[in-house]
Amino acid sequence: MNPTAAIIIIGNEILSGRTEDTNISHIARRLSDVGIALIECRVVRDREDEIVEAVNALRRKYSYVFTTGGIGPTHDDITIPSLAKAFGVAVERNIQVESKLREHYASRTNASNLRMADFPAGASVVWHGEQFAPGCIMENVIVLAGLPRVMHIMLEAALPMLQHGQPTHTRQVDVWAYESQIAEGLETVQNQFPNLDIGSYPYKIDGRVGTALVARGTNAAEVEAAFDAISDMLSHVGAEVRAA
Amino acid sequence: MNPTAAIIIIGNEILSGRTEDTNISHIARRLSDVGIALIECRVVRDREDEIVEAVNALRRKYSYVFTTGGIGPTHDDITIPSLAKAFGVAVERNIQVESKLREHYASRTNASNLRMADFPAGASVVWHGEQFAPGCIMENVIVLAGLPRVMHIMLEAALPMLQHGQPTHTRQVDVWAYESQIAEGLETVQNQFPNLDIGSYPYKIDGRVGTALVARGTNAAEVEAAFDAISDMLSHVGAEVRAA
Repeated sequence: MNPTAAIIIIGNEILSGRTEDTNISHIARRLSDVGIALIECRVVRDREDEIVEAVNALRRKYSYVFTTGGIGPTHDDITIPSLAKAFGVAVERNIQVESKLREHYASRTNASNLRMADFPAGASVVWHGEQFAPGCIMENVIVLAGLPRVMHIMLEAALPMLQHGQPTHTRQVDVWAYESQIAEGLETVQNQFPNLDIGSYPYKIDGRVGTALVARGTNAAEVEAAFDAISDMLSHVGAEVRAA
Repeated sequence: MNPTAAIIIIGNEILSGRTEDTNISHIARRLSDVGIALIECRVVRDREDEIVEAVNALRRKYSYVFTTGGIGPTHDDITIPSLAKAFGVAVERNIQVESKLREHYASRTNASNLRMADFPAGASVVWHGEQFAPGCIMENVIVLAGLPRVMHIMLEAALPMLQHGQPTHTRQVDVWAYESQIAEGLETVQNQFPNLDIGSYPYKIDGRVGTALVARGTNAAEVEAAFDAISDMLSHVGAEVRAA
Protein backbone atom coordinates (compact mmCIF):
# COMPACT_ATOMS: atom_id res chain seq x y z
CA MET A 1 0.00 0.00 0.00
CA ASN A 2 1.25 3.45 -0.91
CA PRO A 3 1.57 6.12 1.78
CA THR A 4 -1.43 8.48 1.87
CA ALA A 5 -1.65 12.25 2.05
CA ALA A 6 -3.90 15.26 2.45
CA ILE A 7 -3.32 18.91 1.57
CA ILE A 8 -4.45 21.90 3.65
CA ILE A 9 -4.51 25.16 1.67
CA ILE A 10 -4.42 28.01 4.20
CA GLY A 11 -5.58 31.39 2.98
CA ASN A 12 -8.50 33.81 2.94
CA GLU A 13 -7.44 34.83 -0.58
CA ILE A 14 -8.52 31.46 -1.99
CA LEU A 15 -11.90 31.54 -0.17
CA SER A 16 -12.61 35.11 -1.29
CA GLY A 17 -11.98 34.14 -4.92
CA ARG A 18 -9.16 36.68 -5.17
CA THR A 19 -6.56 34.00 -5.96
CA GLU A 20 -7.10 30.83 -7.97
CA ASP A 21 -5.30 27.94 -6.30
CA THR A 22 -2.77 26.10 -8.46
CA ASN A 23 -0.93 24.41 -5.57
CA ILE A 24 -3.29 21.43 -5.27
CA SER A 25 -2.73 20.26 -8.85
CA HIS A 26 1.05 20.74 -8.65
CA ILE A 27 1.41 18.83 -5.37
CA ALA A 28 -1.04 16.17 -6.64
CA ARG A 29 1.08 15.50 -9.74
CA ARG A 30 4.34 15.31 -7.77
CA LEU A 31 2.81 12.96 -5.16
CA SER A 32 1.50 10.77 -7.97
CA ASP A 33 5.07 10.63 -9.37
CA VAL A 34 6.55 9.40 -6.09
CA GLY A 35 3.75 7.01 -5.16
CA ILE A 36 2.01 8.93 -2.38
CA ALA A 37 -1.80 8.68 -2.68
CA LEU A 38 -3.53 12.05 -2.27
CA ILE A 39 -6.88 11.32 -0.60
CA GLU A 40 -8.32 14.73 0.23
CA CYS A 41 -7.72 18.48 0.34
CA ARG A 42 -9.13 21.24 2.49
CA VAL A 43 -9.07 24.99 2.06
CA VAL A 44 -9.32 26.89 5.36
CA ARG A 45 -9.19 30.52 6.48
CA ASP A 46 -6.34 32.28 8.25
CA ARG A 47 -7.88 31.41 11.64
CA GLU A 48 -5.98 29.52 14.30
CA ASP A 49 -8.86 27.31 15.47
CA GLU A 50 -9.75 26.30 11.91
CA ILE A 51 -6.13 25.46 11.01
CA VAL A 52 -5.69 23.48 14.26
CA GLU A 53 -8.87 21.51 13.61
CA ALA A 54 -7.90 20.63 10.02
CA VAL A 55 -4.31 19.69 10.98
CA ASN A 56 -5.42 17.47 13.86
CA ALA A 57 -8.17 15.77 11.85
CA LEU A 58 -5.91 14.97 8.91
CA ARG A 59 -2.52 14.22 10.50
CA ARG A 60 -4.05 11.30 12.39
CA LYS A 61 -5.77 9.95 9.28
CA TYR A 62 -3.03 10.05 6.61
CA SER A 63 0.69 9.27 6.33
CA TYR A 64 1.44 12.89 5.42
CA VAL A 65 -0.24 16.29 5.53
CA PHE A 66 1.04 19.14 3.35
CA THR A 67 0.12 22.71 4.25
CA THR A 68 0.56 25.68 1.92
CA GLY A 69 0.43 29.35 2.88
CA GLY A 70 0.60 31.47 5.98
CA ILE A 71 4.35 31.36 6.63
CA GLY A 72 5.31 34.91 5.67
CA PRO A 73 6.08 37.90 7.91
CA THR A 74 2.63 39.50 8.25
CA HIS A 75 -0.10 39.30 10.90
CA ASP A 76 -2.21 36.95 8.76
CA ASP A 77 0.66 34.41 8.55
CA ILE A 78 -0.27 32.11 11.43
CA THR A 79 0.51 28.62 10.15
CA ILE A 80 3.49 28.10 12.50
CA PRO A 81 1.79 29.09 15.79
CA SER A 82 -1.33 27.15 14.72
CA LEU A 83 0.74 24.05 13.99
CA ALA A 84 2.49 24.38 17.37
CA LYS A 85 -0.91 24.58 19.02
CA ALA A 86 -2.16 21.52 17.10
CA PHE A 87 0.82 19.54 18.43
CA GLY A 88 0.69 21.11 21.90
CA VAL A 89 4.25 22.45 21.70
CA ALA A 90 5.83 25.91 21.92
CA VAL A 91 7.06 28.07 19.04
CA GLU A 92 10.85 28.30 19.12
CA ARG A 93 13.27 30.62 17.34
CA ASN A 94 15.85 28.73 15.22
CA ILE A 95 19.15 30.59 15.62
CA GLN A 96 20.71 29.24 12.42
CA VAL A 97 17.70 30.35 10.35
CA GLU A 98 17.64 33.71 12.13
CA SER A 99 21.23 34.32 11.15
CA LYS A 100 20.48 33.48 7.48
CA LEU A 101 17.51 35.87 7.57
CA ARG A 102 19.66 38.67 9.06
CA GLU A 103 22.21 38.09 6.30
CA HIS A 104 19.51 38.13 3.59
CA TYR A 105 17.55 41.14 4.83
CA ALA A 106 20.65 43.07 6.03
CA SER A 107 19.52 46.61 6.92
CA ARG A 108 15.87 45.65 6.25
CA THR A 109 15.96 43.09 9.11
CA ASN A 110 13.11 43.64 11.56
CA ALA A 111 10.90 41.77 14.02
CA SER A 112 8.41 40.89 11.25
CA ASN A 113 10.77 39.09 8.91
CA LEU A 114 12.62 37.38 11.77
CA ARG A 115 9.29 35.63 12.56
CA MET A 116 10.21 33.37 9.62
CA ALA A 117 12.89 31.82 11.89
CA ASP A 118 10.18 30.54 14.25
CA PHE A 119 9.15 26.88 14.15
CA PRO A 120 7.12 24.51 16.35
CA ALA A 121 9.47 22.91 18.94
CA GLY A 122 10.69 19.60 17.55
CA ALA A 123 10.20 20.47 13.87
CA SER A 124 12.95 19.66 11.34
CA VAL A 125 14.02 22.61 9.24
CA VAL A 126 14.06 21.79 5.50
CA TRP A 127 16.66 23.80 3.61
CA HIS A 128 16.12 24.38 -0.08
CA GLY A 129 17.51 26.37 -3.01
CA GLU A 130 16.35 29.74 -1.60
CA GLN A 131 17.93 29.21 1.78
CA PHE A 132 17.07 32.41 3.63
CA ALA A 133 13.61 31.09 4.63
CA PRO A 134 13.45 27.29 4.86
CA GLY A 135 10.33 25.16 5.30
CA CYS A 136 9.82 22.63 8.05
CA ILE A 137 8.47 19.17 8.79
CA MET A 138 6.68 18.62 12.10
CA GLU A 139 6.22 14.87 12.58
CA ASN A 140 4.16 13.98 9.47
CA VAL A 141 3.15 17.56 8.57
CA ILE A 142 5.11 19.25 5.78
CA VAL A 143 4.87 23.06 5.85
CA LEU A 144 5.17 24.78 2.47
CA ALA A 145 4.91 28.37 1.23
CA GLY A 146 1.75 29.61 -0.49
CA LEU A 147 3.53 31.36 -3.38
CA PRO A 148 3.66 28.67 -6.11
CA ARG A 149 7.23 29.49 -7.21
CA VAL A 150 8.56 29.12 -3.66
CA MET A 151 6.25 26.19 -2.82
CA HIS A 152 7.64 24.18 -5.76
CA ILE A 153 11.22 24.57 -4.47
CA MET A 154 10.24 23.68 -0.89
CA LEU A 155 8.28 20.63 -2.04
CA GLU A 156 11.26 19.28 -4.01
CA ALA A 157 13.44 19.71 -0.91
CA ALA A 158 10.93 17.85 1.27
CA LEU A 159 10.00 14.93 -1.02
CA PRO A 160 13.29 13.00 -0.62
CA MET A 161 12.69 12.97 3.15
CA LEU A 162 9.36 11.11 2.79
CA GLN A 163 8.52 7.46 2.24
CA HIS A 164 7.72 6.83 -1.43
CA GLY A 165 5.50 4.13 -2.95
CA GLN A 166 4.62 2.82 -6.38
CA PRO A 167 4.24 5.68 -8.86
CA THR A 168 0.92 5.99 -10.68
CA HIS A 169 0.66 4.92 -14.31
CA THR A 170 -1.94 6.49 -16.58
CA ARG A 171 -3.29 5.64 -20.03
CA GLN A 172 -5.83 7.84 -21.79
CA VAL A 173 -7.88 7.52 -24.92
CA ASP A 174 -10.09 10.27 -26.36
CA VAL A 175 -13.25 9.60 -28.31
CA TRP A 176 -15.74 11.69 -30.25
CA ALA A 177 -18.63 10.42 -28.17
CA TYR A 178 -21.05 11.40 -25.44
CA GLU A 179 -20.20 9.85 -22.08
CA SER A 180 -23.53 8.03 -22.03
CA GLN A 181 -22.56 6.17 -25.23
CA ILE A 182 -19.66 4.48 -23.47
CA ALA A 183 -20.90 4.54 -19.85
CA GLU A 184 -22.09 0.95 -19.71
CA GLY A 185 -18.99 -0.47 -21.40
CA LEU A 186 -16.72 1.62 -19.18
CA GLU A 187 -18.42 0.35 -16.02
CA THR A 188 -17.79 -3.22 -17.19
CA VAL A 189 -14.08 -2.40 -17.56
CA GLN A 190 -14.03 -0.77 -14.11
CA ASN A 191 -15.57 -3.92 -12.62
CA GLN A 192 -12.89 -6.03 -14.36
CA PHE A 193 -10.14 -3.88 -12.83
CA PRO A 194 -11.29 -2.96 -9.30
CA ASN A 195 -7.78 -1.82 -8.29
CA LEU A 196 -7.72 0.89 -10.96
CA ASP A 197 -9.44 4.24 -11.21
CA ILE A 198 -11.30 4.36 -14.50
CA GLY A 199 -12.60 7.86 -15.16
CA SER A 200 -14.39 9.64 -17.98
CA TYR A 201 -14.17 13.39 -18.60
CA PRO A 202 -16.37 15.04 -21.23
CA TYR A 203 -15.51 18.24 -23.14
CA LYS A 204 -16.47 20.21 -26.22
CA ILE A 205 -14.15 21.22 -29.06
CA ASP A 206 -15.69 23.58 -31.64
CA GLY A 207 -19.14 22.44 -30.55
CA ARG A 208 -18.29 18.75 -30.94
CA VAL A 209 -18.62 16.51 -27.87
CA GLY A 210 -15.58 14.45 -26.88
CA THR A 211 -14.75 12.37 -23.83
CA ALA A 212 -11.39 11.45 -22.32
CA LEU A 213 -11.27 7.94 -20.86
CA VAL A 214 -8.54 7.48 -18.29
CA ALA A 215 -7.16 4.41 -16.52
CA ARG A 216 -4.90 5.04 -13.51
CA GLY A 217 -3.17 2.75 -11.07
CA THR A 218 0.13 1.66 -9.59
CA ASN A 219 0.34 -1.61 -11.54
CA ALA A 220 1.57 -0.76 -15.06
CA ALA A 221 0.52 -4.11 -16.55
CA GLU A 222 -3.00 -3.74 -15.19
CA VAL A 223 -3.24 -0.20 -16.58
CA GLU A 224 -2.16 -1.50 -20.02
CA ALA A 225 -4.68 -4.33 -19.85
CA ALA A 226 -7.46 -1.89 -18.90
CA PHE A 227 -6.43 0.39 -21.76
CA ASP A 228 -6.73 -2.56 -24.16
CA ALA A 229 -10.12 -3.47 -22.70
CA ILE A 230 -11.32 0.13 -23.13
CA SER A 231 -10.08 0.17 -26.74
CA ASP A 232 -11.90 -3.10 -27.49
CA MET A 233 -15.06 -1.74 -25.89
CA LEU A 234 -14.84 1.46 -27.98
CA SER A 235 -14.58 -0.40 -31.27
CA HIS A 236 -17.43 -2.64 -30.09
CA VAL A 237 -19.77 0.35 -29.52
CA GLY A 238 -18.46 2.07 -32.66
CA ALA A 239 -17.07 5.16 -30.90
CA GLU A 240 -14.63 7.15 -33.05
CA VAL A 241 -11.23 7.51 -31.39
CA ARG A 242 -9.87 11.06 -31.54
CA ALA A 243 -6.23 11.41 -32.64
CA ALA A 244 -4.19 12.90 -29.79
CA MET B 1 -24.49 38.07 9.99
CA ASN B 2 -24.18 36.79 6.43
CA PRO B 3 -25.15 33.20 5.61
CA THR B 4 -22.14 30.86 5.51
CA ALA B 5 -21.10 28.21 3.00
CA ALA B 6 -18.70 25.41 2.20
CA ILE B 7 -17.81 23.80 -1.14
CA ILE B 8 -17.20 20.08 -1.73
CA ILE B 9 -15.32 19.36 -4.96
CA ILE B 10 -15.98 15.72 -5.86
CA GLY B 11 -13.54 14.12 -8.26
CA ASN B 12 -10.53 11.84 -8.51
CA GLU B 13 -9.32 13.95 -11.44
CA ILE B 14 -8.56 16.88 -9.12
CA LEU B 15 -6.70 14.69 -6.58
CA SER B 16 -4.65 13.00 -9.31
CA GLY B 17 -3.53 16.38 -10.64
CA ARG B 18 -5.09 15.62 -14.05
CA THR B 19 -7.46 18.58 -13.80
CA GLU B 20 -6.80 21.94 -12.18
CA ASP B 21 -9.86 23.07 -10.27
CA THR B 22 -11.28 26.46 -11.25
CA ASN B 23 -14.70 25.96 -9.66
CA ILE B 24 -13.67 27.07 -6.16
CA SER B 25 -12.59 30.53 -7.29
CA HIS B 26 -15.66 31.03 -9.49
CA ILE B 27 -18.13 30.03 -6.76
CA ALA B 28 -16.13 32.04 -4.20
CA ARG B 29 -16.44 35.23 -6.23
CA ARG B 30 -20.17 34.77 -6.88
CA LEU B 31 -20.85 34.04 -3.17
CA SER B 32 -18.89 37.14 -2.24
CA ASP B 33 -21.10 39.16 -4.64
CA VAL B 34 -24.34 37.98 -3.00
CA GLY B 35 -23.13 38.15 0.61
CA ILE B 36 -22.66 34.47 1.43
CA ALA B 37 -19.45 33.89 3.42
CA LEU B 38 -17.39 30.97 2.08
CA ILE B 39 -15.70 29.40 5.12
CA GLU B 40 -14.08 26.22 3.81
CA CYS B 41 -13.69 23.86 0.87
CA ARG B 42 -12.95 20.17 0.63
CA VAL B 43 -11.83 18.05 -2.30
CA VAL B 44 -12.85 14.38 -1.99
CA ARG B 45 -12.61 11.27 -4.13
CA ASP B 46 -15.43 9.56 -6.04
CA ARG B 47 -16.14 7.31 -3.03
CA GLU B 48 -19.54 7.12 -1.41
CA ASP B 49 -18.34 6.99 2.22
CA GLU B 50 -16.04 9.97 1.72
CA ILE B 51 -18.74 12.07 0.05
CA VAL B 52 -21.27 11.14 2.76
CA GLU B 53 -18.83 12.10 5.51
CA ALA B 54 -18.01 15.47 3.96
CA VAL B 55 -21.66 16.31 3.22
CA ASN B 56 -22.81 15.41 6.72
CA ALA B 57 -19.94 17.25 8.43
CA LEU B 58 -20.49 20.45 6.47
CA ARG B 59 -24.27 20.66 5.99
CA ARG B 60 -24.72 20.82 9.77
CA LYS B 61 -22.06 23.49 10.17
CA TYR B 62 -22.89 26.02 7.43
CA SER B 63 -25.99 27.67 5.94
CA TYR B 64 -25.22 26.16 2.53
CA VAL B 65 -23.03 23.45 1.01
CA PHE B 66 -22.24 23.49 -2.72
CA THR B 67 -21.05 20.30 -4.38
CA THR B 68 -19.47 20.14 -7.83
CA GLY B 69 -18.92 17.04 -9.94
CA GLY B 70 -20.12 13.47 -10.10
CA ILE B 71 -23.56 14.04 -11.65
CA GLY B 72 -22.95 12.64 -15.15
CA PRO B 73 -23.99 9.29 -16.65
CA THR B 74 -20.92 7.14 -15.85
CA HIS B 75 -20.12 4.69 -13.05
CA ASP B 76 -17.88 7.22 -11.27
CA ASP B 77 -20.76 9.74 -11.04
CA ILE B 78 -22.08 8.94 -7.57
CA THR B 79 -22.94 12.32 -6.06
CA ILE B 80 -26.73 11.73 -6.13
CA PRO B 81 -26.78 8.29 -4.41
CA SER B 82 -24.16 9.54 -1.92
CA LEU B 83 -26.25 12.59 -1.10
CA ALA B 84 -29.35 10.40 -0.66
CA LYS B 85 -27.38 8.22 1.73
CA ALA B 86 -26.13 11.27 3.67
CA PHE B 87 -29.75 12.36 4.17
CA GLY B 88 -31.04 8.81 4.73
CA VAL B 89 -33.51 9.00 1.85
CA ALA B 90 -34.05 6.99 -1.36
CA VAL B 91 -33.02 7.97 -4.88
CA GLU B 92 -36.10 8.72 -6.99
CA ARG B 93 -36.58 9.10 -10.72
CA ASN B 94 -38.07 12.50 -11.71
CA ILE B 95 -40.50 11.85 -14.55
CA GLN B 96 -40.46 15.41 -15.89
CA VAL B 97 -36.65 15.40 -16.10
CA GLU B 98 -36.67 11.93 -17.64
CA SER B 99 -38.96 13.15 -20.41
CA LYS B 100 -36.63 16.12 -21.11
CA LEU B 101 -33.65 13.75 -21.24
CA ARG B 102 -35.47 11.42 -23.67
CA GLU B 103 -36.27 14.42 -25.86
CA HIS B 104 -32.65 15.64 -25.76
CA TYR B 105 -30.92 12.30 -26.32
CA ALA B 106 -33.59 10.97 -28.74
CA SER B 107 -32.23 7.77 -30.29
CA ARG B 108 -29.16 7.95 -28.03
CA THR B 109 -31.37 7.58 -24.89
CA ASN B 110 -30.17 4.73 -22.68
CA ALA B 111 -30.10 3.64 -19.04
CA SER B 112 -26.87 5.57 -18.42
CA ASN B 113 -28.05 9.01 -19.44
CA LEU B 114 -31.46 8.52 -17.83
CA ARG B 115 -29.60 8.27 -14.49
CA MET B 116 -29.39 12.08 -14.73
CA ALA B 117 -33.15 12.12 -13.94
CA ASP B 118 -32.47 10.58 -10.51
CA PHE B 119 -32.49 12.76 -7.39
CA PRO B 120 -32.59 12.21 -3.62
CA ALA B 121 -36.23 11.98 -2.49
CA GLY B 122 -37.35 15.46 -1.39
CA ALA B 123 -34.84 17.40 -3.49
CA SER B 124 -35.98 20.43 -5.51
CA VAL B 125 -35.02 20.29 -9.16
CA VAL B 126 -33.33 23.51 -10.35
CA TRP B 127 -33.97 24.22 -14.02
CA HIS B 128 -31.47 26.35 -15.89
CA GLY B 129 -30.59 27.50 -19.40
CA GLU B 130 -29.52 24.01 -20.55
CA GLN B 131 -32.67 22.34 -19.40
CA PHE B 132 -32.12 18.72 -20.40
CA ALA B 133 -30.16 17.98 -17.19
CA PRO B 134 -31.09 20.24 -14.28
CA GLY B 135 -29.32 20.52 -10.92
CA CYS B 136 -30.96 20.07 -7.55
CA ILE B 137 -31.11 21.45 -4.03
CA MET B 138 -31.50 18.97 -1.18
CA GLU B 139 -32.33 20.94 1.99
CA ASN B 140 -29.25 23.23 2.23
CA VAL B 141 -27.06 21.31 -0.23
CA ILE B 142 -26.79 22.71 -3.77
CA VAL B 143 -25.66 20.10 -6.33
CA LEU B 144 -23.74 21.49 -9.31
CA ALA B 145 -21.98 19.97 -12.33
CA GLY B 146 -18.19 19.61 -12.39
CA LEU B 147 -17.71 20.99 -15.91
CA PRO B 148 -17.10 24.72 -15.34
CA ARG B 149 -19.24 25.89 -18.28
CA VAL B 150 -22.26 23.92 -17.04
CA MET B 151 -21.56 24.63 -13.36
CA HIS B 152 -21.66 28.41 -14.00
CA ILE B 153 -25.15 28.13 -15.54
CA MET B 154 -26.44 25.89 -12.71
CA LEU B 155 -25.01 28.21 -10.05
CA GLU B 156 -26.76 31.25 -11.54
CA ALA B 157 -30.04 29.30 -11.53
CA ALA B 158 -29.58 28.31 -7.87
CA LEU B 159 -28.36 31.62 -6.37
CA PRO B 160 -31.76 33.43 -6.50
CA MET B 161 -33.22 30.59 -4.40
CA LEU B 162 -30.78 31.21 -1.52
CA GLN B 163 -30.72 33.76 1.27
CA HIS B 164 -28.33 36.59 0.42
CA GLY B 165 -26.42 38.86 2.80
CA GLN B 166 -24.28 41.95 2.60
CA PRO B 167 -21.94 41.78 -0.42
CA THR B 168 -18.22 42.06 0.23
CA HIS B 169 -16.41 45.29 -0.57
CA THR B 170 -12.71 45.23 -1.43
CA ARG B 171 -10.04 47.92 -1.75
CA GLN B 172 -6.51 47.11 -2.83
CA VAL B 173 -3.28 49.06 -3.00
CA ASP B 174 -0.04 47.75 -4.52
CA VAL B 175 3.41 48.78 -3.31
CA TRP B 176 6.97 48.19 -4.42
CA ALA B 177 7.93 46.79 -1.04
CA TYR B 178 8.74 43.58 0.79
CA GLU B 179 5.92 42.39 3.01
CA SER B 180 8.17 42.70 6.06
CA GLN B 181 8.55 46.45 5.41
CA ILE B 182 4.85 47.01 5.92
CA ALA B 183 4.02 44.07 8.23
CA GLU B 184 4.01 46.00 11.49
CA GLY B 185 1.98 48.91 10.09
CA LEU B 186 -0.49 46.55 8.48
CA GLU B 187 -1.05 44.69 11.73
CA THR B 188 -1.87 48.00 13.42
CA VAL B 189 -4.50 48.67 10.75
CA GLN B 190 -5.91 45.15 11.17
CA ASN B 191 -6.23 45.75 14.92
CA GLN B 192 -8.04 49.05 14.24
CA PHE B 193 -10.56 47.24 11.98
CA PRO B 194 -11.18 43.84 13.58
CA ASN B 195 -14.31 43.24 11.42
CA LEU B 196 -12.30 43.42 8.19
CA ASP B 197 -9.91 40.97 6.56
CA ILE B 198 -6.66 42.78 5.90
CA GLY B 199 -4.37 40.64 3.76
CA SER B 200 -1.00 41.06 2.09
CA TYR B 201 0.09 39.12 -1.01
CA PRO B 202 3.67 39.37 -2.29
CA TYR B 203 4.75 38.88 -5.92
CA LYS B 204 7.64 39.57 -8.27
CA ILE B 205 7.48 41.56 -11.52
CA ASP B 206 10.68 41.47 -13.61
CA GLY B 207 12.62 40.54 -10.48
CA ARG B 208 11.19 43.45 -8.49
CA VAL B 209 9.31 42.62 -5.27
CA GLY B 210 5.80 44.02 -4.91
CA THR B 211 3.01 43.41 -2.43
CA ALA B 212 -0.76 43.75 -2.82
CA LEU B 213 -2.49 45.02 0.33
CA VAL B 214 -6.17 44.16 0.45
CA ALA B 215 -8.97 45.26 2.79
CA ARG B 216 -12.24 43.26 2.58
CA GLY B 217 -15.48 43.42 4.47
CA THR B 218 -19.22 43.89 4.24
CA ASN B 219 -19.22 47.48 5.56
CA ALA B 220 -18.20 49.75 2.66
CA ALA B 221 -17.41 52.74 4.90
CA GLU B 222 -15.13 50.63 7.09
CA VAL B 223 -13.32 49.27 4.03
CA GLU B 224 -12.77 52.85 2.79
CA ALA B 225 -11.51 53.93 6.20
CA ALA B 226 -9.12 50.96 6.34
CA PHE B 227 -7.90 51.78 2.83
CA ASP B 228 -7.17 55.34 3.97
CA ALA B 229 -5.36 54.05 7.06
CA ILE B 230 -3.26 51.69 4.90
CA SER B 231 -2.41 54.56 2.53
CA ASP B 232 -1.35 56.78 5.46
CA MET B 233 0.76 53.94 6.87
CA LEU B 234 2.47 53.43 3.50
CA SER B 235 3.48 57.05 3.16
CA HIS B 236 4.64 56.98 6.79
CA VAL B 237 7.02 54.02 6.12
CA GLY B 238 8.02 55.46 2.73
CA ALA B 239 6.74 52.55 0.62
CA GLU B 240 6.36 53.42 -3.07
CA VAL B 241 2.81 52.85 -4.31
CA ARG B 242 2.67 51.00 -7.64
CA ALA B 243 0.37 52.49 -10.28
CA ALA B 244 -2.40 49.99 -11.11
